[in-house]
Amino acid sequence: MRASISRLSHFSAAHRLANAHWSEAKNQKVFGKCANPNFHGHNYDLVVTVTGKIDPETGFVVDLKQLDRLITKDVIERFDHKNLNLDTTEFKTRIPTTENIALVIWHILRPKIFAGHELKVIVYETKRNFCEYRGE
Amino acid sequence: MRASISRLSHFSAAHRLANAHWSEAKNQKVFGKCANPNFHGHNYDLVVTVTGKIDPETGFVVDLKQLDRLITKDVIERFDHKNLNLDTTEFKTRIPTTENIALVIWHILRPKIFAGHELKVIVYETKRNFCEYRGE
Amino acid sequence: MRASISRLSHFSAAHRLANAHWSEAKNQKVFGKCANPNFHGHNYDLVVTVTGKIDPETGFVVDLKQLDRLITKDVIERFDHKNLNLDTTEFKTRIPTTENIALVIWHILRPKIFAGHELKVIVYETKRNFCEYRGE
Amino acid sequence: MRASISRLSHFSAAHRLANAHWSEAKNQKVFGKCANPNFHGHNYDLVVTVTGKIDPETGFVVDLKQLDRLITKDVIERFDHKNLNLDTTEFKTRIPTTENIALVIWHILRPKIFAGHELKVIVYETKRNFCEYRGE
Amino acid sequence: MRASISRLSHFSAAHRLANAHWSEAKNQKVFGKCANPNFHGHNYDLVVTVTGKIDPETGFVVDLKQLDRLITKDVIERFDHKNLNLDTTEFKTRIPTTENIALVIWHILRPKIFAGHELKVIVYETKRNFCEYRGE
Amino acid sequence: MRASISRLSHFSAAHRLANAHWSEAKNQKVFGKCANPNFHGHNYDLVVTVTGKIDPETGFVVDLKQLDRLITKDVIERFDHKNLNLDTTEFKTRIPTTENIALVIWHILRPKIFAGHELKVIVYETKRNFCEYRGE
Repeated sequence: MRASISRLSHFSAAHRLANAHWSEAKNQKVFGKCANPNFHGHNYDLVVTVTGKIDPETGFVVDLKQLDRLITKDVIERFDHKNLNLDTTEFKTRIPTTENIALVIWHILRPKIFAGHELKVIVYETKRNFCEYRGE
Repeated sequence: MRASISRLSHFSAAHRLANAHWSEAKNQKVFGKCANPNFHGHNYDLVVTVTGKIDPETGFVVDLKQLDRLITKDVIERFDHKNLNLDTTEFKTRIPTTENIALVIWHILRPKIFAGHELKVIVYETKRNFCEYRGE
Repeated sequence: MRASISRLSHFSAAHRLANAHWSEAKNQKVFGKCANPNFHGHNYDLVVTVTGKIDPETGFVVDLKQLDRLITKDVIERFDHKNLNLDTTEFKTRIPTTENIALVIWHILRPKIFAGHELKVIVYETKRNFCEYRGE
Repeated sequence: MRASISRLSHFSAAHRLANAHWSEAKNQKVFGKCANPNFHGHNYDLVVTVTGKIDPETGFVVDLKQLDRLITKDVIERFDHKNLNLDTTEFKTRIPTTENIALVIWHILRPKIFAGHELKVIVYETKRNFCEYRGE
Repeated sequence: MRASISRLSHFSAAHRLANAHWSEAKNQKVFGKCANPNFHGHNYDLVVTVTGKIDPETGFVVDLKQLDRLITKDVIERFDHKNLNLDTTEFKTRIPTTENIALVIWHILRPKIFAGHELKVIVYETKRNFCEYRGE
Repeated sequence: MRASISRLSHFSAAHRLANAHWSEAKNQKVFGKCANPNFHGHNYDLVVTVTGKIDPETGFVVDLKQLDRLITKDVIERFDHKNLNLDTTEFKTRIPTTENIALVIWHILRPKIFAGHELKVIVYETKRNFCEYRGE
């Protein structure tokens, strides 16, 4: 009786895509308008999914109120209304692509989730661009 | 040539989360405002997904018109505009969490779907909370 | 330089539609499945719109943080995870149709909004049914 | 460090469902109103998902700008504002069900995607009907 | 105590934009890919809004169940899974632009709605293109 | 026969809210986390609505292809993937609140739209915060 329970959250942040080891010209060539040195930004949607057994006493895989508090404290408060490149330690050297944001959030949450549960993270940069990471 | 075909449906229902073996105080502690004795309610979205071979004569995995009739008759008419705790047999003793609603709907539909097909059910309690069940 | 600024909020509640002066049979006839005596429920979306001059110092018609606090305290905490018929004073005698919910919320908010501003309220019972009230 | 990156696109097309080897009566019986000889149409949503390693230099699984150009040129320009039955070679003999549209798009894209990457296609005929194909 | 109650409906149809008095070349020039002689199609969303007094006995401006039956019978069954140009009388000579579809639906519904009520129709051709008509 | 035709567009941008004549402390007090000196960002949705007579020859109020080209060239290319405070002339001195963004876009478009047509602009900063400006 395994199920996958998901919670959708939101954060708004500024970022730019640029490899610090590359020239500005190469960054413009590879990342296009996403390399704008003055940054741009997005409303990110975040879906966190936990898979495990349904507890017969509560009917829960996990308590979504607790999961929501964890996501709010460790992810949303860290990234919301921030500049991912300038205001966070995670993206000081790592490029804040949708792939890397999903990977970083997964690694933030994984140690806080019961080890017997699987964890999946989906990050929507826009409605049209999104990335899923499962720790594989 | 296996594909997964999905149908989205809706139902609106009242429910409360409470374990009948617990005190009201413990139910309030565990389930918070979801334990309101007078109930609250949701617009549930239901996605039913059937995976199997594409029939070369019809181009269908299953006929969605028939799948929709099955979902409407056996799920939507049973739960729509009902109180899940008071008006259904399924949730008389089982707590109507999103996990259990997905599990119950899966077990209602599984015997009516061709045995060679896989079945997946996703229930959205709100846009922000949803659960997937695959019978595992 | 007048603009209309809007804030979207959510609440989940149980309700039933029934006129207390009518027989159960007449309520069933007029309100159909919405008259279920055991209640059903919805995820309500609420859009509150305030129209007024843009303040040149802030660029705001109203401070949405303050408007959001007002809506949360006076509307969402009053109705969220409640039974509108049983848990509220507003719908003890008034039928909680989408029209009346919009009207009630408008009257809750109107005295708290600057008198020089216009106020509009839209309540979505579902994505398919919604009502706008402007105090006219 | 494998992730799945997705891109959402849109196209609007006319189609009808009919097996050319069947009588009109049988097509009406099996496909119902979808067999209308004068066609009907849809706004199709298309999600293309590519799974592979995150490149440490770019933070990308694939460059979404390049993936978008590929989808636009090889899928959207081929099907958008077209009659799938009359204006395309792919559906001259194959019935344009959601299943077959997903399968056809997967086969159009597969040779253009790096062989080490997995490919998944989801086609939404409407918000309520959609199909996923993974080349299995 | 006037409120505006709205109902959202859907229909899927094929159409083409072309002025019968113009050459094919002029139609291509003015209407672009929308003039495709073999048609294309859309999932249309329709919002019908009725404004009037809230009846104190029912809490309704209009009974949405009755309004929905009217829209289904007189609009959706007439246009759903049809070719607007070939299968309807309304668009035999009138070009089925979003503007004209909204105008035609308004004129279909106006005589069936209580004369003391205002009527507004919004037609979404896609999420990005939509038109409102109020009979002005 | 007047109708209102609308076009939805998108742009992603960084911004911060701060009055240049105020201390950093006062900006933090008034604008909260929106005053982050390193900026944050949003996916903005823009709805442009033009109201006028339906041309009997085309069935159009305006040609949406031309309106879309205008919006793309004069609004989207100016603001998309930009820092509104640093990369634009419009928000060098004007605070980029949703109200002011709507007002600025209205003034950009008004001279390019036929004088006999009414113009309305709605800007969504997020799904929950949006502003309408009509030039009043």
